[in-house]
Amino acid sequence: MHEKKDVYQRSLELHRETKGKVAMCSKMPVRSMADLALAYTPGVAEPCRQIHAHPESVYDYTAKGNTVAVISDGSAVLGLGDIGPEAAMPVMEGKCVLFKSFADIDAFPLCLRTQDPDEIVRIVAAITPGLGGINLEDISAPRCFEIEERLKEICGIPVFHDDQHGTAAILLAGLLNSLKVVEKSLNDVKIVVNGAGAAGTAICSILNMAGATQIIACDSKGALSRDMELPPAKAKLAASTNPQQEKGLLSDVLGGADVFLGASTAGTLKQEDVRRMAPGAVVFAMANPTPEIFPDEAKAAGAAVVGTGRSDFPNQVNNCLGFPGIFRGALDVRASCINDAMKLAAAHALARLIPDEELHAENVIVDSFDPRVVPAVAEAVAEAARKTGVARI
Amino acid sequence: MHEKKDVYQRSLELHRETKGKVAMCSKMPVRSMADLALAYTPGVAEPCRQIHAHPESVYDYTAKGNTVAVISDGSAVLGLGDIGPEAAMPVMEGKCVLFKSFADIDAFPLCLRTQDPDEIVRIVAAITPGLGGINLEDISAPRCFEIEERLKEICGIPVFHDDQHGTAAILLAGLLNSLKVVEKSLNDVKIVVNGAGAAGTAICSILNMAGATQIIACDSKGALSRDMELPPAKAKLAASTNPQQEKGLLSDVLGGADVFLGASTAGTLKQEDVRRMAPGAVVFAMANPTPEIFPDEAKAAGAAVVGTGRSDFPNQVNNCLGFPGIFRGALDVRASCINDAMKLAAAHALARLIPDEELHAENVIVDSFDPRVVPAVAEAVAEAARKTGVARI
Repeated sequence: MHEKKDVYQRSLELHRETKGKVAMCSKMPVRSMADLALAYTPGVAEPCRQIHAHPESVYDYTAKGNTVAVISDGSAVLGLGDIGPEAAMPVMEGKCVLFKSFADIDAFPLCLRTQDPDEIVRIVAAITPGLGGINLEDISAPRCFEIEERLKEICGIPVFHDDQHGTAAILLAGLLNSLKVVEKSLNDVKIVVNGAGAAGTAICSILNMAGATQIIACDSKGALSRDMELPPAKAKLAASTNPQQEKGLLSDVLGGADVFLGASTAGTLKQEDVRRMAPGAVVFAMANPTPEIFPDEAKAAGAAVVGTGRSDFPNQVNNCLGFPGIFRGALDVRASCINDAMKLAAAHALARLIPDEELHAENVIVDSFDPRVVPAVAEAVAEAARKTGVARI
Repeated sequence: MHEKKDVYQRSLELHRETKGKVAMCSKMPVRSMADLALAYTPGVAEPCRQIHAHPESVYDYTAKGNTVAVISDGSAVLGLGDIGPEAAMPVMEGKCVLFKSFADIDAFPLCLRTQDPDEIVRIVAAITPGLGGINLEDISAPRCFEIEERLKEICGIPVFHDDQHGTAAILLAGLLNSLKVVEKSLNDVKIVVNGAGAAGTAICSILNMAGATQIIACDSKGALSRDMELPPAKAKLAASTNPQQEKGLLSDVLGGADVFLGASTAGTLKQEDVRRMAPGAVVFAMANPTPEIFPDEAKAAGAAVVGTGRSDFPNQVNNCLGFPGIFRGALDVRASCINDAMKLAAAHALARLIPDEELHAENVIVDSFDPRVVPAVAEAVAEAARKTGVARI
């Protein structure tokens, strides 16, 4: 706890010293009238005319193709909740720094003073002309589903809610490798996903796409099933999961489960729950900063493979493994979207970075700073974009 | 003409080489898990919490206080007209480069896929949480008036349409010095402003504030007067100008005029018009790239002082003299707006940079790259902000 406090204090001081984390830099210095004539008037008229005549050339003459806006309404920031757009800025600036550090993508933060989905869709759709992609961030469920879906339909550039799809793709990579370790097959394991918000919903979706057939989604009241009265987003989730219509609390449906995936809150998984799971249980407890169960507790209760969102335990599901390479790949081929095939390709590429002979219970997810990650993910995503016809170069 | 073509071609090549002119840079590198813990989770939660508790501290912990969005709808770009948001991007990126080069302000371009004033106002108002200021650019009149006015009312940060107010402030500086050269007083000279669009309207406004009493505004059909049937923006302009209700074409009302200020189109001022002006005539022909009249022609017809928008003649009205220092000063004191006093202060500071003993007909406006410009303008603007109670630090 003392160390944690220290991180907070040091972070605060660092933020105050640097006055935030992002700055603009110029790729064309202007030190003379001659520079000015090239970067601005009169010379700049020529790229303007070219783009006006050939709209696609905006990718050649402007920064569009490498620019991503990190957009939030501040409604679901980290573990802090609905803290509003100003207070969300440090996180969004941080995300921009990660885009730059990991994938050399130029991202800038935009925090919106509205939480109305219609407004957000209108605003984001209107600012796309100079953007190569849109990273939605920390927007609360279920609003995030509608916002992303509508934007994907109208924007014509990648729109990606990282809290959903980034997390889901990395988790799938970890799960694929975990199942190799415990020698089970994704097609017939029983998977319980705890948390039916943004991340939980996306996890169920990518698991379905990847071939899982026995998925049960739980919210804080227990398993979701088709015969329940549920709000639309959860009803949709229930419709695509829980084929046996199991009912009950998390602890009930965990009986005989092979996999627990937690995108919920601290401490929701008990040791007695893990004991009721099948032998060779896989547990990903991703609540942050305090997981659903700590790895040592889970292992003591019989879990074979355990992952968390934390860097101080093995098998970290760290978002830096996902979005930098996914966007890098999408931007590299000017993809019009980030589709399901691209997300799956990212997960498989991540999983493959650990060869079978190096796989073991404490090594199912590659290190976040492994330099192979972004190139491997980007290449796989770009190839999937080409194969599915959404690449434009 | 050959040289011009060359500038266009070289600019095009340069834009293609660099793929645009702006990039994001990170002020906090992330190379290790320890860096990540400070720039992002978990450390970043602390500045978020601080801002949530003390909203004004967003200026301490984020880049807000030094960040300006350069916003256009692509409706009136340079001399190119309504070329749309994508084709406007090279100009907006260029403006961002100038913000950085001249005033170390971090600006990023946002080109909007809408020209509806209501939409533009809604969008810009919603993105202010992370912004220190808003530079509106190349938005056509009369929409620009309404958009700027409404945004100034609701944003609480500086909103500035440079095509209007930047141009006007610099021109006023040049005019104040010109009148010293010809030994006339602003209060009683007859001034004809040709062009009743964005720049012309702002020029009349700042001249009024500065104490001019005999201003006649002309559009392409001639002098505007109160008894004419005019659209709202021009009617407002007519109401604050032309006290004698003079009528007729530009050439008619120029009879006996002391000053011609052109914010119109190439070649609209003829030598015979200049000959009909009063002795010691001052002519600013700012149409770009081809002025209303060339300096040598104006002088041959009797003009005493001539300025243009071009760098290859003396007395250049170059926007780089205005917006960088104006925004620098406003941001330095966290001004809630850029008010009239601040614009006037900028003009006077610019004018004062040329001491009386150095003033002459070919030296009424300081060089755009004079390193004294931005500090002098910024200081004057900041002081005016303090005096008028809009500074927040």
